[in-house]
Amino acid sequence: MAVDSFDVHELAAHKDEFAKAYEELKSRNLSLNLTRGKPSSEQLDFANALLGLPAPDYVSASGEDVRNYGNDKGITDIRAIWADLMDLPVENVLAQDASSLNIQFDLISWAMQFGNVDSERPWNQEPVLKWLCPVPGYDRHFAITQHFGIEMIQVPMNEDGPDMDVVEKLVAADPQIKGMWNVPMFSNPTGVTYSAEVCRRLVQMETAAPDFRLMWDNAYMVHTLTDEFPEIHNVIAWAEEAGNPNRVWAFGSTSKITFAGAGVAFYASSKENLDNYLAHAGIRGIGPNKVNQLAHAKFFGDAEGVREQMRRHAGSLAPKFDKVLQILDSRLSAYGVAEWSKPTGGYFINLDVVDGTARRVVELAKEAGIALTGSGSSFPLKQDPNDRNIRLAPSLPPMEELEVAMDGVATCVLLAAAEKASA
Amino acid sequence: MAVDSFDVHELAAHKDEFAKAYEELKSRNLSLNLTRGKPSSEQLDFANALLGLPAPDYVSASGEDVRNYGNDKGITDIRAIWADLMDLPVENVLAQDASSLNIQFDLISWAMQFGNVDSERPWNQEPVLKWLCPVPGYDRHFAITQHFGIEMIQVPMNEDGPDMDVVEKLVAADPQIKGMWNVPMFSNPTGVTYSAEVCRRLVQMETAAPDFRLMWDNAYMVHTLTDEFPEIHNVIAWAEEAGNPNRVWAFGSTSKITFAGAGVAFYASSKENLDNYLAHAGIRGIGPNKVNQLAHAKFFGDAEGVREQMRRHAGSLAPKFDKVLQILDSRLSAYGVAEWSKPTGGYFINLDVVDGTARRVVELAKEAGIALTGSGSSFPLKQDPNDRNIRLAPSLPPMEELEVAMDGVATCVLLAAAEKASA
Repeated sequence: MAVDSFDVHELAAHKDEFAKAYEELKSRNLSLNLTRGKPSSEQLDFANALLGLPAPDYVSASGEDVRNYGNDKGITDIRAIWADLMDLPVENVLAQDASSLNIQFDLISWAMQFGNVDSERPWNQEPVLKWLCPVPGYDRHFAITQHFGIEMIQVPMNEDGPDMDVVEKLVAADPQIKGMWNVPMFSNPTGVTYSAEVCRRLVQMETAAPDFRLMWDNAYMVHTLTDEFPEIHNVIAWAEEAGNPNRVWAFGSTSKITFAGAGVAFYASSKENLDNYLAHAGIRGIGPNKVNQLAHAKFFGDAEGVREQMRRHAGSLAPKFDKVLQILDSRLSAYGVAEWSKPTGGYFINLDVVDGTARRVVELAKEAGIALTGSGSSFPLKQDPNDRNIRLAPSLPPMEELEVAMDGVATCVLLAAAEKASA
Repeated sequence: MAVDSFDVHELAAHKDEFAKAYEELKSRNLSLNLTRGKPSSEQLDFANALLGLPAPDYVSASGEDVRNYGNDKGITDIRAIWADLMDLPVENVLAQDASSLNIQFDLISWAMQFGNVDSERPWNQEPVLKWLCPVPGYDRHFAITQHFGIEMIQVPMNEDGPDMDVVEKLVAADPQIKGMWNVPMFSNPTGVTYSAEVCRRLVQMETAAPDFRLMWDNAYMVHTLTDEFPEIHNVIAWAEEAGNPNRVWAFGSTSKITFAGAGVAFYASSKENLDNYLAHAGIRGIGPNKVNQLAHAKFFGDAEGVREQMRRHAGSLAPKFDKVLQILDSRLSAYGVAEWSKPTGGYFINLDVVDGTARRVVELAKEAGIALTGSGSSFPLKQDPNDRNIRLAPSLPPMEELEVAMDGVATCVLLAAAEKASA
């Protein structure tokens, strides 16, 4: 949202003061990093029991030896836990390796090469391909569609999800729009959770493309910062009820629940979509790492075990988010030079600064030894049309570093705004 | 090789005797399986320490926290061990997830979509694509090229590798031949190890295609059945010396060393090829499972630790191979109805029966409760032109079952040959 409640003359008058604060900041020779949504060491420690699992066991609940080849769907032990969390029958959920990003990439790659179950032709044979991108959004999503040469159309994000009037109009009119990125809960970076109504409209809407797909990356579905876990909307069931059974490709993963780099990824969809995926995945390999899956199943026990783990994360993360919000409020509110999200879950705080200054803020911070995510990175092709948006990732640094870094960022936001006001 | 040293009249004379033996076999109601090259429980037990690793550690030799995101190349700890085994600088070896089949599939998939570093265009834009397939070979290799619609050209296997006169002539003449499958050591299913001369000729030969690739699946490079480990030919260095630095995509994995279904896969190639791979893999995901990599590095210690583990496997496998060879010899030699390999490594015994009877042997065995790999499965499109080849996989069954099953197979080979002789 546009930041426009500042007083140009007041800002300009403070420029020297802000510049002096910035010089002091630079003189401290900091080396701090707020770039990535990585869990901290403290958070990773919550899962350290996994380092020694699944010893001494190697047999799944259904009696298979997880050490050997086989079972391209993943073991039921872990699939059942995610099916429970996602309110789906276990048959609709596959457990695969690493992060769900891999599966998202493969699904698009294979749709390009082979088409989907409801495609008229492989996507490679379409004259042009387009994709809806709610903005700001997840940079790695946009990187995938960019990689495959898919044209990205920006859609505004509202408080309850993407602007559905815009979405419905676009997909109804253009058969070349083949899909849409979604992080439906505690969205990256806005923290927005889609309302039930938005979810319903997405699965019900008329699409000109018969093989339109909702990429439903539920990466943060249990990543609360409070004691509450929001309801998970069962879009796969709703899509089937609406007569669009194959519309949703849904994902989850343990990446920010146990070990970010050594997780289990989940792909949930219609039976027809899953069968089509397995027809390719079964040629690509002989099945996922079931030892890691059994280790995770033992670590969690059940869906409530996952929620318990997330409460531990919330206990570590919430004070960091509070600290960032407190610094933004105390340093910036009086000048009206920024707006920011106050998320109740997820990994990011979305900071909007005065139009045309986001790039400058990141540059000033960098010169002062504070690495921020590149400006524009939450937009397709990394181009923020208003040069306004900055994604803050509070999770990784220890609290003391976070405090110093955010205070420095506030100084940069003020100076960039004052520079612009004086220009 | 054609089996032609039998005496038709003698065989026909024995038909009733063989038929009687077969009826006795059937009456035992067996349920035995010789289909897949899976390690046995005894072999998997050799790696059970892995179930509790890498606890309590989570830091790599270079100081990175393996629990967190990052490092798309894999950790040096495990890459260095495979680099040592493959006689390569560590920079030329990546450690990735699961089986190397995944990487092979992705490399072909991405060459189709994007082309290689030396391609004139993406392979999808070629009018036709062809691939050399030494036969008999690995069914899952052929399944990948079939999946992408690549035409497969059969090349005969000799004792020292593929028939190079045939190979050189084909690749020099046809720019649409873009690659060739190779299992250069203890090949699947023949057990053949390529000679140094064959390796040299492969990397030196003139190819009409500028972006021709040797798929160098060194899945069995340390899988000896004796005390000896054959020399590993450094084809990547040789290719560079020959002025074809990007010709070789080489692979290894821990799949049949530790846990078949939960391994670490290795991709070795030129820096240019690896960079190109990472440019795609880095969009596909955030890096491989480094926790599993650290567990493997700790389990092995070093390259000699890998060889120690393989000696344990040889101790379990060699008696099974010996038993199969002994039964084949005692039951079949007198009649001249079969030829078979006597491998010193790998996972298979290659059995050639009387032309036109392989399918019948598999069918007879199935009716008697003995599952054999489908006839023809070691050929592209599963079509053995001579209906002669059967792949025996002795590893999985316990010794007693193996003995019963192989004795039954011998009965089926004899009956099928006698049926043909009497027809």
